[in-house]
Amino acid sequence: MRAKTETRRQAILDAAAVVFQETGFERTTMAAICERLGYSKATLYNYFASKEELFSAVVFEATEAEFQATLEALDATVEDMTEALQKFGRGLLTLLYSPQVQAVRRLIVAEAGRSELGKKCYELGPVRNEAAAAAFLQHAMDTGQLRQADARIAALHLRGLLEAEGLDRFLFQTLEPISAEEINATVARAVAAFMAAYGPVQA
Amino acid sequence: MRAKTETRRQAILDAAAVVFQETGFERTTMAAICERLGYSKATLYNYFASKEELFSAVVFEATEAEFQATLEALDATVEDMTEALQKFGRGLLTLLYSPQVQAVRRLIVAEAGRSELGKKCYELGPVRNEAAAAAFLQHAMDTGQLRQADARIAALHLRGLLEAEGLDRFLFQTLEPISAEEINATVARAVAAFMAAYGPVQA
Repeated sequence: MRAKTETRRQAILDAAAVVFQETGFERTTMAAICERLGYSKATLYNYFASKEELFSAVVFEATEAEFQATLEALDATVEDMTEALQKFGRGLLTLLYSPQVQAVRRLIVAEAGRSELGKKCYELGPVRNEAAAAAFLQHAMDTGQLRQADARIAALHLRGLLEAEGLDRFLFQTLEPISAEEINATVARAVAAFMAAYGPVQA
Repeated sequence: MRAKTETRRQAILDAAAVVFQETGFERTTMAAICERLGYSKATLYNYFASKEELFSAVVFEATEAEFQATLEALDATVEDMTEALQKFGRGLLTLLYSPQVQAVRRLIVAEAGRSELGKKCYELGPVRNEAAAAAFLQHAMDTGQLRQADARIAALHLRGLLEAEGLDRFLFQTLEPISAEEINATVARAVAAFMAAYGPVQA
């Protein structure tokens, strides 16, 4: 029973991914997704309460692998802190500025007031990300690779610095496609500022 | 003629502010605003092309005074840089986290894909803010109160640090009302990190 449920859920996600890609979020209907699957509307709504919920599930699935890879960059045994943070930053910005994640973030911001979607995505995304980054920074503080500070605040400051250059452009939708080169330069500047603020105290 | 145009525009803004406040953005119609004014729809649309444009004009007018006060905190003759940046930060976060500005930011993010509203607001808000902050920081670098760096990037990093703690909560709409005390503490932490990164090089 469990397996069947999982199989159906996956089938819905696969079909929805194709339909969203073909017709865009606005013009996609739950009916169109049902049609492709040969499922009844009742079955579909049994798995996903709304088009918004389905869309965010599609995107989370699509980005989960990249998200995990980003977290792996936070290797606690790393020796060069600047390099580790740059790797983390490049992964994070590449993820955040991908058209797919930009689209879902925008949807979430727009929908958040009308549903529980915002809170759910907040817990799946930023909360997990922040906790992993804070644990990594705490370890680096304990081993003297960073100066002692509040690791949660340090994680938020790191994130704030990484997003600083692109954020307003994202919010106001003037964000042009960003090249890997630009991301590297942005990340290098952010990590340099972070290390100046949180790096080990010079003897 | 010019004066009459200005008078009418102001009358529309005043009436719209009342109607938006009474009925909320969603349920407000351009017809309801016309009715209150005794104007024809054609007249109203002559001044504002859409409800969204009218709403953002209302909010910009309402927040302009505060915005200017925030910029005044960037007094180039200031002696204590930390104090000046904290004053700027408190003004900025108080403005950004006010229910009024939160509402318009959310609207802009949601609408930005569908109209020119995002770009227009981007130029009115962040671009002006960033330019003023960069000019202030450049002056402080020139007088040795901050170390030499790219002033535009420094301004973006300052902004990123100031917004770091509240941003995800804003985007995902889990931002509870913030007290002046919390804003002060958030700003103090952000400015401390900024000064560690950009403060004068210790002799």
